[in-house]
Amino acid sequence: MLEPRLTLLIAESEDSRLSSLCREVLPTSIRVIHSEKLLIHEFSDVNIILGAPDRLADWLPYLPKLQWIQSTWAGVKPLVLAKRHDYVLTGLKGVFGQAMSEYVLGWLLALERQILTYAADVSWNQRPLCSVQGKHVGIMGTGDIGRAVASTLSNMGMVCRGYNQSGKVFPEFQSCFSGSNMRDFACGLDYLVCLMPDTPKTQGLVSRDLLMALDSDAILINAGRGNCIDELDLLWVLDQGHLRYCVLDVFRQEPLPESHPFWSHPKIYVTSHTSAPTDPAGAVRVFEMNLTRFLNGESLLYAVDFEKGY
Amino acid sequence: MLEPRLTLLIAESEDSRLSSLCREVLPTSIRVIHSEKLLIHEFSDVNIILGAPDRLADWLPYLPKLQWIQSTWAGVKPLVLAKRHDYVLTGLKGVFGQAMSEYVLGWLLALERQILTYAADVSWNQRPLCSVQGKHVGIMGTGDIGRAVASTLSNMGMVCRGYNQSGKVFPEFQSCFSGSNMRDFACGLDYLVCLMPDTPKTQGLVSRDLLMALDSDAILINAGRGNCIDELDLLWVLDQGHLRYCVLDVFRQEPLPESHPFWSHPKIYVTSHTSAPTDPAGAVRVFEMNLTRFLNGESLLYAVDFEKGY
Repeated sequence: MLEPRLTLLIAESEDSRLSSLCREVLPTSIRVIHSEKLLIHEFSDVNIILGAPDRLADWLPYLPKLQWIQSTWAGVKPLVLAKRHDYVLTGLKGVFGQAMSEYVLGWLLALERQILTYAADVSWNQRPLCSVQGKHVGIMGTGDIGRAVASTLSNMGMVCRGYNQSGKVFPEFQSCFSGSNMRDFACGLDYLVCLMPDTPKTQGLVSRDLLMALDSDAILINAGRGNCIDELDLLWVLDQGHLRYCVLDVFRQEPLPESHPFWSHPKIYVTSHTSAPTDPAGAVRVFEMNLTRFLNGESLLYAVDFEKGY
Repeated sequence: MLEPRLTLLIAESEDSRLSSLCREVLPTSIRVIHSEKLLIHEFSDVNIILGAPDRLADWLPYLPKLQWIQSTWAGVKPLVLAKRHDYVLTGLKGVFGQAMSEYVLGWLLALERQILTYAADVSWNQRPLCSVQGKHVGIMGTGDIGRAVASTLSNMGMVCRGYNQSGKVFPEFQSCFSGSNMRDFACGLDYLVCLMPDTPKTQGLVSRDLLMALDSDAILINAGRGNCIDELDLLWVLDQGHLRYCVLDVFRQEPLPESHPFWSHPKIYVTSHTSAPTDPAGAVRVFEMNLTRFLNGESLLYAVDFEKGY
């Protein structure tokens, strides 16, 4: 008896590289349809989706045969919030570590080594040398991205503390903190790097108290999700003369409106959710690994726990 | 029989930290005099000098008992050029690797990840992601500084080639080139990092030919000495539309005059010989190691070969 043919929906309109890369790894037994050319009656055939969570949430009620969605984003919140959970949702992991490490280390070096200031010089100017060496960094979020960043920063001579919800300890960190142990985690840190997903438990976790516990010259980087920081709290902390710089890549509202005070604040650098965009090759690599497991009836990598939200 | 008492001259006026750090490591048997308060008749007692090469060259004829100079700079050219060579000159090594690695990696990330551009944004702007991963870097100079930089860049996923005069091969580089093998070394490099000392053999070594052999989008960093590049040649290469950016920390004339075209060139970033300044603690650490060896009659670390100039 022939197995019923599988149908894969590729739901990513903005990057045609994803489709072309996919074509190289797909067995011919799988039929591929693309969301741009999708006819409504085709929804009923779809077994597998590879795509960005935001667009997919609305389609869930129309996909009777859906078995598996491979997200092309690190964050999967739109699908976690959707009511339907009778399929396997797999996140995209193991592919953002390099880009995020470059972002975090790049900004720390740019600020500590005064690269932005030197770049604007028009005459000889020797400033005292500062260094990232020996600096204490707290990383909130100890998933694969946080651990990759910790390894990179440790290689540059920094000392990394980790914070997570699970209480797990990872060798990439000199010490790990969790739960209410937050003040000990934050106390005297030179740099705080937030790399947490958007879940109810991370909402507002980077509080005034936490920020005030950092060294007064500390640098804050948020490249996880915007929900962990109350933006007014952050402005209040800066108004106290606390913190040297903030580098923010994620916000409560994106795109960050042009009228937002962050754009013009002298201590805040805004980037436009560009710290670690999806690399199509990395996404297809993960999809291919999971597809092999799917076809063999094995459990999939990076399956999302809908309860936890990641 | 008592040993004759040794006299150490500390010849560093600008940084009093050097003196105070020295005091902590010196045995009481050594008499210390300071160059700021130096009386001319005291020159005749000096056995050891710790100081910056530029000031010392003029004093050499007046130091009959001189046995050893520990340089507080990486570069020792003023003493190599001086006629007197009947003492041991030791360089300062093993202390600039961290600062230089931060400088080179900091600038590469700032340029590749468009940090300078994002820092100036006043509205949401998502640019395509670029990365240092997999980029091919050529490092000219495979001494302790060049090898430390190679390790750092390799840790970030770059592929490092080394170039030196000696033909030696070091494990920090994927491949090493030397002598006239220059075109093979340079061919298609994404980044060229020059970390060579100022010697007759490095004069003009970074030629038009070498620069034109790099990838046309390459980034050039010179943080060794200014003598290796003819500045007019570099401007000519840029005029051909070749090279993406140059980051220059060292020049034929320092301070670089305000009228110099480098200051205003859109593709050139100038820093003021601040890539890896001497850290007094590091200098004293090396001095202490060598002093122990000196007092035990052992050979000193980092002794300069006056012929080679480093």
